[in-house]
Amino acid sequence: LTLESVLQAAVGPAHVLLDADLRASYETDWTGRFSGVSRAVVRPAGTEQVAQVLAACAEADVPVVVQGGNTGLVGGGIPDPDQSDRPPVLLLTTRLTELGEVSPVSRQVTAGAGVRLAALAAHARAAGLDFGVDLAARDSATVGGMLATNAGGIRVLRYGSMREQIAGVEAVLIDGQIISRLEAPVKDSTGYDIGHLLAGSEGTLAVVTRLRLRLVAAEHTRAVALVAVRDTADAAGLLAALRGELPGLCAAEISFRPGLELVARYLGVPEPLADAGGQARVLVEHAAETGPLDELLTALGKCDQVLDATVADSPADRARLWQLRESHAEAISAAGQPVKLDVSVPPDRLAELVARLPDAVGTVRPDAGLVIFGHLAEANLHVNVMGAADSFEEVSGAVLGLVASLGGSISSEHGVGRAKARWLELSRSPAEIGVMRSIKAAFDPRGLLNPGVLLNGHDRNR
Amino acid sequence: LTLESVLQAAVGPAHVLLDADLRASYETDWTGRFSGVSRAVVRPAGTEQVAQVLAACAEADVPVVVQGGNTGLVGGGIPDPDQSDRPPVLLLTTRLTELGEVSPVSRQVTAGAGVRLAALAAHARAAGLDFGVDLAARDSATVGGMLATNAGGIRVLRYGSMREQIAGVEAVLIDGQIISRLEAPVKDSTGYDIGHLLAGSEGTLAVVTRLRLRLVAAEHTRAVALVAVRDTADAAGLLAALRGELPGLCAAEISFRPGLELVARYLGVPEPLADAGGQARVLVEHAAETGPLDELLTALGKCDQVLDATVADSPADRARLWQLRESHAEAISAAGQPVKLDVSVPPDRLAELVARLPDAVGTVRPDAGLVIFGHLAEANLHVNVMGAADSFEEVSGAVLGLVASLGGSISSEHGVGRAKARWLELSRSPAEIGVMRSIKAAFDPRGLLNPGVLLNGHDRNR
Repeated sequence: LTLESVLQAAVGPAHVLLDADLRASYETDWTGRFSGVSRAVVRPAGTEQVAQVLAACAEADVPVVVQGGNTGLVGGGIPDPDQSDRPPVLLLTTRLTELGEVSPVSRQVTAGAGVRLAALAAHARAAGLDFGVDLAARDSATVGGMLATNAGGIRVLRYGSMREQIAGVEAVLIDGQIISRLEAPVKDSTGYDIGHLLAGSEGTLAVVTRLRLRLVAAEHTRAVALVAVRDTADAAGLLAALRGELPGLCAAEISFRPGLELVARYLGVPEPLADAGGQARVLVEHAAETGPLDELLTALGKCDQVLDATVADSPADRARLWQLRESHAEAISAAGQPVKLDVSVPPDRLAELVARLPDAVGTVRPDAGLVIFGHLAEANLHVNVMGAADSFEEVSGAVLGLVASLGGSISSEHGVGRAKARWLELSRSPAEIGVMRSIKAAFDPRGLLNPGVLLNGHDRNR
Repeated sequence: LTLESVLQAAVGPAHVLLDADLRASYETDWTGRFSGVSRAVVRPAGTEQVAQVLAACAEADVPVVVQGGNTGLVGGGIPDPDQSDRPPVLLLTTRLTELGEVSPVSRQVTAGAGVRLAALAAHARAAGLDFGVDLAARDSATVGGMLATNAGGIRVLRYGSMREQIAGVEAVLIDGQIISRLEAPVKDSTGYDIGHLLAGSEGTLAVVTRLRLRLVAAEHTRAVALVAVRDTADAAGLLAALRGELPGLCAAEISFRPGLELVARYLGVPEPLADAGGQARVLVEHAAETGPLDELLTALGKCDQVLDATVADSPADRARLWQLRESHAEAISAAGQPVKLDVSVPPDRLAELVARLPDAVGTVRPDAGLVIFGHLAEANLHVNVMGAADSFEEVSGAVLGLVASLGGSISSEHGVGRAKARWLELSRSPAEIGVMRSIKAAFDPRGLLNPGVLLNGHDRNR
């Protein structure tokens, strides 16, 4: 029996894509930067089928790469181009779309790894609740991929990252064994928490098939303001002041004039606050039971960092302001393939990072452009270097080196993937990497799961 | 060089206790149930000294048991009595008492593993903040031990367990390597989160030396009520109703008349609500900026589960009501050595657990008494079986079996320790235990850290 025939028996012939044309769209990522060839693209429909696929691959000693919405930005769901002599099975979570009933008592729901973020949020809202994580790729990102990268997004300051939403996890080990701990007791202290370990593990330890997710209370009324401030330091000062004033603050996003100009051109709308002066813009969202707009205006009135502001409380107006922030990635991609880096620093170093980025990039590519935006509270910046796609390694090295010198993280929310595996030691110590390597070997001794991602690439680069 | 001389050189001769009399108080736990002999009791003063102690023990192939406040209830910090032919070094965290400055911006503080909970809370309050975890053993429990067991306590419904308070962890591996990730960026997605893995690992993977802890906003005004209700089902109904009414609800503890009678006798005070009828009592605490007592009374007025209630808002009166709840463990111990079990079930099974406990215990010890209390929101009960200390195994098996049959956890917040290692498979599947065993081997291949605790005891019982 060939591996292909075993896979076809497990998931049905229609869900084993062998033809190169059918496989192609899954073998390249959203940015177009990462490509690799797979042996087959397989779409299992449930946990048992995932178990059969993994067991068959393990038996045949064939690697497995897991792919969710394929909107990750670090190549974590794409076959390793350096191992084309040993193409992996590409396991899609597309059909793991079970979405259970919302429990109003526990405020939890069970979701398949392939459930899209937008579908989960709509499901939670239909039950009078909401999901705590939100991000611009909500229509394509899957909850399984979000767990695998410990995704953050625009509401981390209120609800935390993906890890904080996890009440239970079901996953399949490389040998096909199922670990299921979905409706665990609320409080449990019986040894190592494997589900938490899988948060941020990028498919290198096990394949997550279902998640038990915490939901949050729905916020009924919200108000949004886009605020012009002089610079990053004033943006940080504004946030600190607003946090003291507004217990319902739920988002604080930073962008800059060059990015907003690009987005406005891309969307064909006027740049807001174009005449307000200052280089930085902060989008804040505040939720309250009644009168969030009044509270937001009162709070902003007390902050002398505010140069000018535009506010919104109707859904349509709020969406217009959010669109300016959330269209950054699309507008950037439309302008050409950027070098995209997702980094964070200790909050008190954010202004310094922003100030020093142009020089860091200019040293290796004086001709490159820079578009920056991100999550202010976590000092998490999405750094896009424009017109330098052919200098990916040099530009990445320069930016990540600067971030590390400021005590920051080389990946704040996208994961390490293939893109940053060779720079892992900038964020993690040799002792930590040693432990990570041991944990990897404990779960996956033959290195079959997502080879080249996170640690394995690091291995190869030694 | 003997191990003893190496240890003395590392931590100073005064901090290596070799004399049996000096060692004795550390070799028996608070309940008196767990005892074991150590080779030496060692008190390192900082991370570097811990590293030297572990490296020396690893070199000499001598096991290491870690002890915090010695208030754990499952023998996790006591040498294994079954391995008296190979006595371990008993490593105390007593001198790891560094307590850093509170950062008002990040709302975090760095604390040594040996810092007592009460000292941490006082330190946080002096800076206008508070620590999110609180429990009755606050004067003796250490934050390191609390992390090792993922301790819960009386405020879990508001702030979560110990795991949720962790922003960073420093720990030492068995070979003496230090893993330090204390002031990590707010949001970080660079691989496996080793700190989270250590939460609940009970000293079997590494020795935690320092913690970076999240603090919470201080609650300035609180009100407490002790409420008489008919039974467990009504207690759960009351909590569900209050959660909807009181966003500032911060504790909901359940106790029962036999326990309250015992505590009142022990304290020499009258039993409160003695004539109110009903068997269950719920202590609720509510915090609000202004007028928490009025809000609490209004909310209670809407709940038809309330048979009677006594309320308090002055600090002294609140303390009196809390004392009735928090003196349970002491009053029970004063009445004789109980079989103490810490369990939880899915919240909708709590009433069934309470109803079936007397029969489960009665089957193995018809003469035993039963005192129950615990944390209502997490359906976490502390089950104390009185007058049956000589039937520990049979009573434990009966209670834990019942809990497992209801889909519960055999350890909700105390950990598995030595006490429950042989019952681990009631809460964790063979696949999970297999993974836990692999993780253990990855960190500690020779099984030198806390042998007999959590998994190792399980090994031996196979």
